[in-house]
Amino acid sequence: MQTSLKIAVVGSGLVGSLLAIYLKKAGHTVHVYDRSPDIRKINFSGRSINLAMSNRGWKALDGVGVGDSVREIAIPMDKRAIHLVDKLNFQNYGQEGESIYSISRGTLNRKMIDLAEQAGAEFLFDQKIWDVTLSDATLHIGETERGEWEEKKYDMVFGADGAFSRIRHRMQRQSMFNYSQEFLNMGYKELNIPANTDATHKLDKNSFHIWPRGEYMLIALPNLDGSFTCTLFMPFEGENSFASLTDRKMVEDFFTKNFPDSIEVIPKLAEDFFKNPTSTLVTMKCFPWTYEDKIALIGDACHAIVPFYGQGMNAGFEDITVLNEMIEEYGDDWKKIFSEYQLSRKPNADAIAELSYRNFMEMSTKTADEKFLLQKKIEKAFSDKYPEKWIPLYSRVTFSDRPYAEALAIGDFQNGIMEEILKTDNIENIWNTPEIDNKILQLLQNA
Amino acid sequence: MQTSLKIAVVGSGLVGSLLAIYLKKAGHTVHVYDRSPDIRKINFSGRSINLAMSNRGWKALDGVGVGDSVREIAIPMDKRAIHLVDKLNFQNYGQEGESIYSISRGTLNRKMIDLAEQAGAEFLFDQKIWDVTLSDATLHIGETERGEWEEKKYDMVFGADGAFSRIRHRMQRQSMFNYSQEFLNMGYKELNIPANTDATHKLDKNSFHIWPRGEYMLIALPNLDGSFTCTLFMPFEGENSFASLTDRKMVEDFFTKNFPDSIEVIPKLAEDFFKNPTSTLVTMKCFPWTYEDKIALIGDACHAIVPFYGQGMNAGFEDITVLNEMIEEYGDDWKKIFSEYQLSRKPNADAIAELSYRNFMEMSTKTADEKFLLQKKIEKAFSDKYPEKWIPLYSRVTFSDRPYAEALAIGDFQNGIMEEILKTDNIENIWNTPEIDNKILQLLQNA
Repeated sequence: MQTSLKIAVVGSGLVGSLLAIYLKKAGHTVHVYDRSPDIRKINFSGRSINLAMSNRGWKALDGVGVGDSVREIAIPMDKRAIHLVDKLNFQNYGQEGESIYSISRGTLNRKMIDLAEQAGAEFLFDQKIWDVTLSDATLHIGETERGEWEEKKYDMVFGADGAFSRIRHRMQRQSMFNYSQEFLNMGYKELNIPANTDATHKLDKNSFHIWPRGEYMLIALPNLDGSFTCTLFMPFEGENSFASLTDRKMVEDFFTKNFPDSIEVIPKLAEDFFKNPTSTLVTMKCFPWTYEDKIALIGDACHAIVPFYGQGMNAGFEDITVLNEMIEEYGDDWKKIFSEYQLSRKPNADAIAELSYRNFMEMSTKTADEKFLLQKKIEKAFSDKYPEKWIPLYSRVTFSDRPYAEALAIGDFQNGIMEEILKTDNIENIWNTPEIDNKILQLLQNA
Repeated sequence: MQTSLKIAVVGSGLVGSLLAIYLKKAGHTVHVYDRSPDIRKINFSGRSINLAMSNRGWKALDGVGVGDSVREIAIPMDKRAIHLVDKLNFQNYGQEGESIYSISRGTLNRKMIDLAEQAGAEFLFDQKIWDVTLSDATLHIGETERGEWEEKKYDMVFGADGAFSRIRHRMQRQSMFNYSQEFLNMGYKELNIPANTDATHKLDKNSFHIWPRGEYMLIALPNLDGSFTCTLFMPFEGENSFASLTDRKMVEDFFTKNFPDSIEVIPKLAEDFFKNPTSTLVTMKCFPWTYEDKIALIGDACHAIVPFYGQGMNAGFEDITVLNEMIEEYGDDWKKIFSEYQLSRKPNADAIAELSYRNFMEMSTKTADEKFLLQKKIEKAFSDKYPEKWIPLYSRVTFSDRPYAEALAIGDFQNGIMEEILKTDNIENIWNTPEIDNKILQLLQNA
C-alpha cells in the first residue's frame, strides 16, 4: 500500500475520471477539477465523434473493475461497412468474435464520473485553473485570468485537461521543453441518423459505416437508442470543403451527389450542418510529461492525436495502465514512477500519432481501392493459416496490448512484404494459394 | 508613399532596430519596446555567440543605407581554420574576395539602436509587454504579469521579440496555429581569448576558427579589440558534457587533452567556464506569422534556428528585405503585404532551419574528415571551371540571395552527385581531371 497523498486531477474527462478511480482505490485523497459545468447536468451534443473502445481501453477499465459497467453502454462493431457510390462492401476488423465498441462520448463521460464518485473521488466543477506552481503542486483558481486567484496546494497534480491543457501550458514555459502542435487543413462536423420509430437502427447496427471519398469522408457509429452519430471530415477550404457549402441547397446537393444512400437517413442534414460547429483536428506532441514527483500530464494533455485510428481514448487509458504498473513496481518512489512512466509512454504516443495521421488515407481513400482490399484479404488469409507469423497491423493496434511503437515498426515491415507480393503476376487470382503463402514465408525468413 | 501609421515594434534587438529604421524612413511613427534596460547602458557579455554577417544581412543593411556604418565594426573571415589535435588546416569559404564578417552582437546592437534613433524611432526600455490584443493592435504593459497593466493602442504591431516572443505567445492561443519548439541535447558556453598586449590577435584574425571533435566543438570569432569570442558547444549530459566537468581541474584537463592549442590563449578558462551560463539551443517554427493587417512576427519570433550556419541574423534581416519588397509592391494594402510576406518567407525559414540543424554535423565532424574535405575540393575545382553550372551549397546560402529553399533542394541534388563521384576508383588522385569533370557534367545532364 502506498502512503496516502492529497492529489488533484485537473480535467473530468474520460482519462481524468478513470485516473481518479485508480488513485482513489490506491488509498489517496482525490479532487477532480473541471473548468466546465458537470456534464451530467447539461446538454452535451453537436460536437463530438463517437468513441471506438478497443482492447487497451477495456484493459484499463477492467484493471480497476469498471469494465462491465461500461459494456452496458457499448455496441460491438465487428466490421467496416464501406459505402461506395454504387455499392456496399463489408470488411471484418479482425478474427471471429473480435470487435471494436461504439460508445457515445457524453454517455461514457457521465458514467465514468458516477463511477469515480462512487469510488470516493470528489469532483469540483466550474473551477477555472489558470496556472500551477510546478515546484509545490499548487493550483491557481479564479473566475477570470486577470482577476483574483485562490491557491490550492496538493502533494501532486495530474494534468488530464486535454489537448489545450493549462497544466502543460505552464510546463511549456520551462527551458528545454519540446513541444509541437499541428493542425490538419481538415475539420469535422457532427451529423445525426435518428432511430426508426421502433427504436431500431436504420443501418446495420454492428458496423462502423464509412463513405470514403478521397479528400473527404463521412462515418457513422451506432448509439444505444437506435440512432447513429455521423461525422463528416472535409477540408476547410477548396473545391469540396466546408467553405464551399454555404447554403442549404448546396449541402443537400453535395450529399445527394456524393453520399446518395445517406440522404434519406439524415433528415435534419442542412439544419444540423449549419447549427453544429466545424471542429479542428490537431496533433500535439511534447516532452517531458512530468515535473519531479509533483506534476504529471496524461492523455490528450501530453499526446493529442487525430481520430482516424479510433485510439485517442484507448491510448489515454493505456497511460493509466502503465502508470499503475509503475506504481505497483516502485511503491512510494514517485520520481521513479513518473520518470519510468514518461519514458515508457513517449515512443508509443509518438507511434500512435503517426499511425493515426496515416489512417485518414486508409479510411478515406484506400478502403475504396480494390488493390488495398486485395492486400487486406491476402493478409487475412495468411494470418488465418499462420497466426503466430502474421498479426495484421490493425489487429496489433486494436486487439492487442503490444506497444504501439512495435506495431508501427512491424506494420511497416509487413507492408514492404505486401508490396512485393502485390507485384506478383496474376495476383488477383492466385492470392490464396500455397505459392503465395510460400513467397510470404520466404520474405519473412529473409528479414 | 504610404499612409503614415503609428507602429509598435516589440523587441530592440537587431531585427527590431533595423525594422524600425525601414519603417521610420517610410514615414511612419515608430515606437520600439523592450522589456530589458537599454543595452547601451549596461554590461552585456558572457552569453553570446559572435555574429557572422553575410550577403543577406548586408543587403538588408545597404537597402536602408546603414551598411557602411556596420562595416566599420566588422572583421572579414575568408576561411575556416580547422584545428585538429595534431595539425591546422585551412578551408576557404568561397571565391577570392568572398568573406563572412565577424561582429560582436553587443557592439552591433548598440550601433543599430543608435542608427534607429538617428532615423527618428523612439525607444522605450524596461517596458514589459505581457499580452497583445490581436484585433486592434493594443499592447498590455505592466511591471508584473499579475499586476496592473496599461494599454497602448497602435495601428500595427511587429513582434521582433525573439524565440520566446510574447506577441507570438498570444497568437499561439488561437485555433489552427501550428507551432513547434525543439531543444537540442546540447548547450553552449562563451569563453574568451584576450588580445595580445599590443592589441593584435593571438590567432589568425581573418579566420573562423573551429576545433571539430565530433559530439562537441569549440569555435572562435575575432573582435575589433584583438580578442576572440569563443563558444564551446557540448552535450548537457553524458561522457563529454557540461554535466561531466564539475571542477576547475576537470575543465583544464579536458581542454589540455582535447584542445591543446587553445590552452595558452584562454587564460581565464576555468573562471569563465564556471562564471558564464550554459545556454540552450532551440529550433522554433510556427505558422501563420501575421494576423490580418494588425500583427506580424519577424526574425527569431517566427523562426528561431540553431546557430551552425551563421544565418540566424541574416535570415531575420532578409525578412525585412522581403517585407519591404511587399510594401513597395502593394502600397497601403497591409493585408496583402502581410499575407505575401509570410507565404514568401515560411518555406525559406523552414529550409534554413533544416540546413542549420544539419550543419552542426558538418562543422563538428565532417571538417575533420578527409573524405569530406576531398568532396569540398572537387566541388571547388569544378565550380571554378563551370561557375554557371555549380554553385556550392555554402555559397548559395552565404554569398547569394537566392531563396534558402532553393539552396536546400539544389544542395541535396549536388550531394547525390558527389556521392557518386566519390565512389570512383582512385578518386583521391584523379579528382581534378577531365575524366571527373565529364562525369559530373554527365550526372548534371541526366537529372
